[in-house]
Amino acid sequence: MNSEKIEIFDTTLRDGEQVPGCKLNTEQKLIIAERLDKLGIDIIEAGFPISSPGDFESVSEISKLVKNAKVCGLTRANKKDIDVAAEALKFAKRPRIHTGIGTSESHIRYKFNSTKEDILERAAEAVRYAKTYVEDVEFYAEDAGRTDNEYLAQVCEAVIKAGATVLNIPDTTGYCLPEEYGQKIKYLRENVKGIEKAVLSCHCHNDLGLATANSIAGVMNGARQIECTINGLGERAGNTALEEVVMILKQHKDLNLHTDVNSRMLNEMSLMVSDLMGMSVQPNKAIVGANAFAHSSGIHQDGVIKNRETYEIIDPEEVGVSTSSIILTARSGRSALAYRFKHIGYDVTKNELDYLYQEFLKVADLKKEIGNDDLSRIIETFNRKIG
Amino acid sequence: MNSEKIEIFDTTLRDGEQVPGCKLNTEQKLIIAERLDKLGIDIIEAGFPISSPGDFESVSEISKLVKNAKVCGLTRANKKDIDVAAEALKFAKRPRIHTGIGTSESHIRYKFNSTKEDILERAAEAVRYAKTYVEDVEFYAEDAGRTDNEYLAQVCEAVIKAGATVLNIPDTTGYCLPEEYGQKIKYLRENVKGIEKAVLSCHCHNDLGLATANSIAGVMNGARQIECTINGLGERAGNTALEEVVMILKQHKDLNLHTDVNSRMLNEMSLMVSDLMGMSVQPNKAIVGANAFAHSSGIHQDGVIKNRETYEIIDPEEVGVSTSSIILTARSGRSALAYRFKHIGYDVTKNELDYLYQEFLKVADLKKEIGNDDLSRIIETFNRKIG
Repeated sequence: MNSEKIEIFDTTLRDGEQVPGCKLNTEQKLIIAERLDKLGIDIIEAGFPISSPGDFESVSEISKLVKNAKVCGLTRANKKDIDVAAEALKFAKRPRIHTGIGTSESHIRYKFNSTKEDILERAAEAVRYAKTYVEDVEFYAEDAGRTDNEYLAQVCEAVIKAGATVLNIPDTTGYCLPEEYGQKIKYLRENVKGIEKAVLSCHCHNDLGLATANSIAGVMNGARQIECTINGLGERAGNTALEEVVMILKQHKDLNLHTDVNSRMLNEMSLMVSDLMGMSVQPNKAIVGANAFAHSSGIHQDGVIKNRETYEIIDPEEVGVSTSSIILTARSGRSALAYRFKHIGYDVTKNELDYLYQEFLKVADLKKEIGNDDLSRIIETFNRKIG
Repeated sequence: MNSEKIEIFDTTLRDGEQVPGCKLNTEQKLIIAERLDKLGIDIIEAGFPISSPGDFESVSEISKLVKNAKVCGLTRANKKDIDVAAEALKFAKRPRIHTGIGTSESHIRYKFNSTKEDILERAAEAVRYAKTYVEDVEFYAEDAGRTDNEYLAQVCEAVIKAGATVLNIPDTTGYCLPEEYGQKIKYLRENVKGIEKAVLSCHCHNDLGLATANSIAGVMNGARQIECTINGLGERAGNTALEEVVMILKQHKDLNLHTDVNSRMLNEMSLMVSDLMGMSVQPNKAIVGANAFAHSSGIHQDGVIKNRETYEIIDPEEVGVSTSSIILTARSGRSALAYRFKHIGYDVTKNELDYLYQEFLKVADLKKEIGNDDLSRIIETFNRKIG
């Protein structure tokens, strides 16, 4: 069976930038957008044009710059938002308007003080209006994660009829479990009339640490687009991390799904976004954390030295990291020590190693990490003793 | 149906400390162990006693200190490791020895240069030997994630016969998808003779960002212990994050599972471990990141002000954060601005707000975040103009 493509919709510049302390200027956004385009992203969500003059300008300039990706602008479900977004996108080669409205009971009641019928009508009306500007209209059913499936299906049906090309099913509060989110996508695939005319899209938040798993459950159940950000940035606990879903689909050939993202650019992309946004990436972040490929325990180091695949499922070069690191600490074993001694030019015998390892542990119990200069000192002291 | 308890096995001091740059001294480990005990952890894995004299001392001192939790020490499947662990644990009120061996083809062939039959015998022998010291013996089948289920079931059966009380099924390389990991646990529940005599335990790594989802899939399929660390610390991309699994079980009452962890201590615990280990937590980390409860987009702020549950699934106080923050940026809307003006003492009319909002956006487009002093300046300029 041929592998099916999953479209990657990057929202680093819209939902990712919606973060305290993350304001980017237009120039910075253009740098990121250009790299995203080279990375092989299918859709770049460039901003929310009506939200501020700066955002409008960014969407407009990104539209002029981007060569391959579709460029998308966010709106609420009203004419003014859509007018402004269409204006900001007018230079895009492949523009997309992303409009939508909250569909959960909590949103309908508390946010809009409205009814299900009214929301349904406003949703379809917004899509119809957006279609007067562009062919490609994505609809988001905000808080779909907490919307009952039957009503959600009605909304989807109505907006498909109105011309929506993509249906975004956001787990806005990050509450869903993977099974539940997967079932929601499956329900829509099976119960929405005309569903074959639109692409279902996963947009998951990470409040419970499940955004990546939920997105994968979504595509396993028929969604064909994932909305995500570099480093999983975004409001609160952030969005689905782009690098994680891309590498899961790449590593799990059994899913028979792929993306067009060039994974070798992921590490560089992560560093660039972290620098420009001033948002740190923790060392233990999957795929792009500084320690993601670093081994320090003796048991693991021993295994990696014997055969990399014992502990490493991803070749670090596949994500643009030049080599995995063997770091010496009090948890390292004899083989890692011998490996490093050899690396810095000392070939030690088994008996020598037994002695040197005890000396190494004494130093290592006092320090976080043992460098090559520590090793040289240990060897020199040893040579003086036996010399 | 009564909710069933999931035991929380914290390995911050063992697998979590197996991180480049994370060396803790005994005193620091005692501080953490004491807090973990108060947090309501069921089992504290205190270290790997044979790995270094420092680790031995830590396990021994933690054993004397801890009042409620079981204290556990790691070993490989050999007598010397087990002798040393038993010695380090001798003062523990409730000691547990955690022994095991690699069971995947990759581990058997490359790491041990051995056969399936030999590994099976060594596994059972290690458990029998550990039982001569303590009643509570946990067995780990290293790289169980990549071990074929049939052989894994044989290993489990053999070690249960030898007296193992807990079976740890680690996804050592972080490769499994949630469905796959859940199915593995289910298979063992259904195919291992004597399985009712032992507790199945999830030990997942985060290399693909799926550790939390895999652990939850595990307990949904019959596992009753989760091995995890504060902040998800650990080798490479780390372990399952304790705070995430605890809050998922707390929020999803429908799973009918609970832990005894006092969630109100989670934030404090995260800060303490991050400080002592010198390992940063990224702002968008689920549950314990600095931004986990911060809203900056206009749409979200408006919703939270109207009704917190519109966008917030967890009351921040439940994890020990005193209040969720409304942060003003260029993405904020009128209602957040009015809310903050009111908060600092200015009650503005709708017309005033329209004008002030435009002024606010001009400042906000140039700055990452707007503070109260910026707001005061905007109001003063406005008052001078109309004054």
